[in-house]
Amino acid sequence: MGEALNGLKRSMMCGEVRETNVSQKITLMGWVQRNRKLGGLQFIDLRDRTGIMQIVFGEEINAEAFEKAKGVRPEYCIAVTGEVVLREAPNENLPTGLVELKCESLKVLSESETPPIYIKEGLDADERIRLKYRYLDLRRPDMQRIFMIRNKATKAVRDYLDNNGFLDIETPMLTKSTPEGARDYLVPSRNYPGMFYALPQSPQIFKQLLMVSGFDKYYQIVKCFRDEDLRANRQPEFTQVDLEMSFVDQDDVMALNEGLIAHVFKEVAGVDVKLPIKRMKYKEAMEKYGSDKPDLRFGMEIMNITEDVKDLDFVVFKSAIENGGSVRALCLKGGANLGRKQIDKLAEFVKTYKAKGLAWLQIKEDGVKSSIAKFLTEEVTNSIVKTTKAEAGDAILIVADKDSVVLQSLGALRLHLAKEFDLIKDKNEFNFTWITEFPLLEYDEEEGRYSAAHHPFTSPMDEDIDLLETNPGAVRAKAYDLVLNGEELGGGSIRIHDSALQKRMFKALGFTEESAQERFGFLIDAFKFGPPPHGGLAFGLDRMIMFLAGTENIKDVIAFPKNQNAFDYLSEAPNIVDKKQLDELGIEIAKKEN
Amino acid sequence: MGEALNGLKRSMMCGEVRETNVSQKITLMGWVQRNRKLGGLQFIDLRDRTGIMQIVFGEEINAEAFEKAKGVRPEYCIAVTGEVVLREAPNENLPTGLVELKCESLKVLSESETPPIYIKEGLDADERIRLKYRYLDLRRPDMQRIFMIRNKATKAVRDYLDNNGFLDIETPMLTKSTPEGARDYLVPSRNYPGMFYALPQSPQIFKQLLMVSGFDKYYQIVKCFRDEDLRANRQPEFTQVDLEMSFVDQDDVMALNEGLIAHVFKEVAGVDVKLPIKRMKYKEAMEKYGSDKPDLRFGMEIMNITEDVKDLDFVVFKSAIENGGSVRALCLKGGANLGRKQIDKLAEFVKTYKAKGLAWLQIKEDGVKSSIAKFLTEEVTNSIVKTTKAEAGDAILIVADKDSVVLQSLGALRLHLAKEFDLIKDKNEFNFTWITEFPLLEYDEEEGRYSAAHHPFTSPMDEDIDLLETNPGAVRAKAYDLVLNGEELGGGSIRIHDSALQKRMFKALGFTEESAQERFGFLIDAFKFGPPPHGGLAFGLDRMIMFLAGTENIKDVIAFPKNQNAFDYLSEAPNIVDKKQLDELGIEIAKKEN
Repeated sequence: MGEALNGLKRSMMCGEVRETNVSQKITLMGWVQRNRKLGGLQFIDLRDRTGIMQIVFGEEINAEAFEKAKGVRPEYCIAVTGEVVLREAPNENLPTGLVELKCESLKVLSESETPPIYIKEGLDADERIRLKYRYLDLRRPDMQRIFMIRNKATKAVRDYLDNNGFLDIETPMLTKSTPEGARDYLVPSRNYPGMFYALPQSPQIFKQLLMVSGFDKYYQIVKCFRDEDLRANRQPEFTQVDLEMSFVDQDDVMALNEGLIAHVFKEVAGVDVKLPIKRMKYKEAMEKYGSDKPDLRFGMEIMNITEDVKDLDFVVFKSAIENGGSVRALCLKGGANLGRKQIDKLAEFVKTYKAKGLAWLQIKEDGVKSSIAKFLTEEVTNSIVKTTKAEAGDAILIVADKDSVVLQSLGALRLHLAKEFDLIKDKNEFNFTWITEFPLLEYDEEEGRYSAAHHPFTSPMDEDIDLLETNPGAVRAKAYDLVLNGEELGGGSIRIHDSALQKRMFKALGFTEESAQERFGFLIDAFKFGPPPHGGLAFGLDRMIMFLAGTENIKDVIAFPKNQNAFDYLSEAPNIVDKKQLDELGIEIAKKEN
Repeated sequence: MGEALNGLKRSMMCGEVRETNVSQKITLMGWVQRNRKLGGLQFIDLRDRTGIMQIVFGEEINAEAFEKAKGVRPEYCIAVTGEVVLREAPNENLPTGLVELKCESLKVLSESETPPIYIKEGLDADERIRLKYRYLDLRRPDMQRIFMIRNKATKAVRDYLDNNGFLDIETPMLTKSTPEGARDYLVPSRNYPGMFYALPQSPQIFKQLLMVSGFDKYYQIVKCFRDEDLRANRQPEFTQVDLEMSFVDQDDVMALNEGLIAHVFKEVAGVDVKLPIKRMKYKEAMEKYGSDKPDLRFGMEIMNITEDVKDLDFVVFKSAIENGGSVRALCLKGGANLGRKQIDKLAEFVKTYKAKGLAWLQIKEDGVKSSIAKFLTEEVTNSIVKTTKAEAGDAILIVADKDSVVLQSLGALRLHLAKEFDLIKDKNEFNFTWITEFPLLEYDEEEGRYSAAHHPFTSPMDEDIDLLETNPGAVRAKAYDLVLNGEELGGGSIRIHDSALQKRMFKALGFTEESAQERFGFLIDAFKFGPPPHGGLAFGLDRMIMFLAGTENIKDVIAFPKNQNAFDYLSEAPNIVDKKQLDELGIEIAKKEN
């Protein structure tokens, strides 16, 4: 049973009441956090999205409200009217803790069954239950705070881009399927049975068309879709801050986006991002950190000890070097004390990254201990120690293999050690880096050809253009990623706007003129009509909010997320539909084969 | 072939150059609108989204640029650098018309083929060509202006709602199909073959859940989808300004939205919307204008002459009245001069609205002429003239039938006459009206039961609640539409938050407890946990922009629209997809039956 408002108006929000309101008669509305009996009085903590306010009921204050209050249970939705007074026992921990409301009138707007989860901060409940009762999970103050942060962040993005001449333009959701990139979500067409739309993986082509149209600067905060098996922290539908600019080069796009990021982090988190954001070339990032998104909150760079060990009579090192690979190492400060079991675990860890094993040296007070002691000479040991700058008490952890395996496994080990040994000292640090000069092309071993590392419209660096035909793998792109604390926050590129260069690019990718036209026809056509030089960038908004809100679970920053199988526990989607609906679309459920 | 920017920076936009820039050396970039040879010089009109600037080339200014300029054709994308000087022959019609740029350096950034449509204002080209080459159509200044208006309007909406404590929260695009309302667009699930998501027709249920969660005030500018046969000015994907508020009644929601509309129309169009916006009850709108979205920019109300003619011995009127219907009329000022053919055409017009015919009286200088003269007495004629307030020179146009036919046909005739005889004097008027007190339920003749006029969560008016069981058709809803110049701009309602009342509503709609649970289960469940009183509204953003931009074609306000068959001429979506894609989804194209 619920009482009607009947014209009753809320005066302010629960969390806003202060000493300045003392002796005012106000009306508050919200949810009952708890209801206690104390010294002949009834105390209700009333909650709304702004905070909690104490409401007091008593025989002397108002007998009817007092009686009614006794029956009120947690999560009832109520309205209370009364006078604000100073508390006898102030609560310094609460913004409203100096005052309370003496309730003269109480309306129970709606009752509540006992909720299946606690409405409190830092709840540790089964995720499935939280998702099924998402509307209750979202009542929890820490969840509410996240969506207030998300709201503030998107507003800050929009304000900044608007102030910088960007136009917010919507691109279509029902678009064309292209068998490129990730798997599309398809939408059957009713007007053209047997044909399908695809939900966009990104508005890439449309935003480039908008540049051809002369809109000059475009942005959109837009839903994108990928039907992939969901790794942790991926969702089938996610949100991008997508932008594109005309008549710009790489530095212009990067400068604009640095300003954007600085504005958002300042507005939302009060963080001063030091500009310009430092830059690191892809090659350096890979060599030093084994990653194109290095976490620079701690050091422990990968060091190349190939020269130091090249004459050792150790077959693992030798064959790696002879096959064009390398021997590299991490120096773990204080690692000399690791026990054998701990080191074995690290060896297991690097094996998941295809390393064959982990060699190690421990620089103890009483000398060097090593898994490859019998192959080492004192000279080589000293040389390794010197190159890795190891000191007494440290451990040197070594992988030898082809470069890609060495760098990837040591890069992963570096992050693993940082977590294991708590190497990141300042948990509140926001360490931004641009990664630049990405390879334009990646060699696809399976297909036996090059594919676009970014996408086929990414411009090569001017000085590398002539390598397109002679040494495609060495061509660097005008592409840039913004990395924060070891995560990719966003990325983009300058696009090719010259049709002759675009043709050379398609050729390098193994397209014939016909196959390129078939796949990218309408963009190629558009580029016949005076396309401007242009480039852009897209940020993952969900990830940005994760940083701003300090959560590591993407589901925390999406109001109604899906599980790892793209299932929605709340609405129970996907579900079975009427045969009539399928008939109209001209599709059938495939018979299962036994 | 395109030249690279090579670090060249744009100084300002073309439309921004003024006398204050004289003697400055600047760089502009844009598209060639035209290129003329005149008195040994070359003049290029350079265009970007802000306007046009004249660039002059000459042997004396810079011989190389001059030579290059001769080869430049319309829609080439170029960069020019030079000094701003005063024009010898100023053009007062152009904001930049007092100055020109003496070009010392020209870069052709990209060339253009001859465009298939003219890049000019007010183009009258085949829509199919315009849509196929949408990127060129969007280059036209009038199209660019529309998307700048759209950008400004969405910004104004967001700013206003943000200032009023609304949180921008995203709701899912992949959601549950419910066989209610319009036809869903379906999305096959790969993880659950044979099951489907649906694209949202509106975020209605999710926004109500957000109120249950205590977010208090929610808004979103969001894509919605309806797979319907497209009438003019409908698109399969469209954009809503969607909002919902807690602890409010109808007046609160209406006041907030009046403020929103006034802010947007002021910011974007400089229009002062007089607040409060006038209100009209549904019943009055139907009786006076035969429509729940009356165009109030002109009068010509429908008048009931049943009493005046009830004793006439004219079978058409008689049977209408005897069957519970009525006889009603419009008075067309100056209509006495209409010829027989013109009146016949009006009669044809009302027949498309199921009226059986149109009776008429013309009040001429020399007496009354009428299609029903032989049935009229002088007394009845005078009585009709008095009731309809007709004067010499006017025509009275009459329909007799059951009320719904009479009102609908005269309502339509009223709008038709307004267009035909140009009755709307002020074309720039924005005439806003709220329509209130809508019926809660509509009787569905086919199904033989009541259905929700708005949706099943709409609250009845307090004073009508007890009619739910006794006279459901008479129950009025706490629902409101905002009407502008005869079009519905938006609509909403206060929702039921009391579960006992919700049960009575479901019963009135013919649901059993089980069938209600099956259909609306997760919302019904949510309402067990203290839902707050709440209500909201949704505006059609596309239509709002049509008003602000002064266009009557919805395709003009959507960057990449589809045609009447939901086909995209630009990307050629929908299209055929690989069998592999369908196999993964567990669906097949249905075999055509012969």
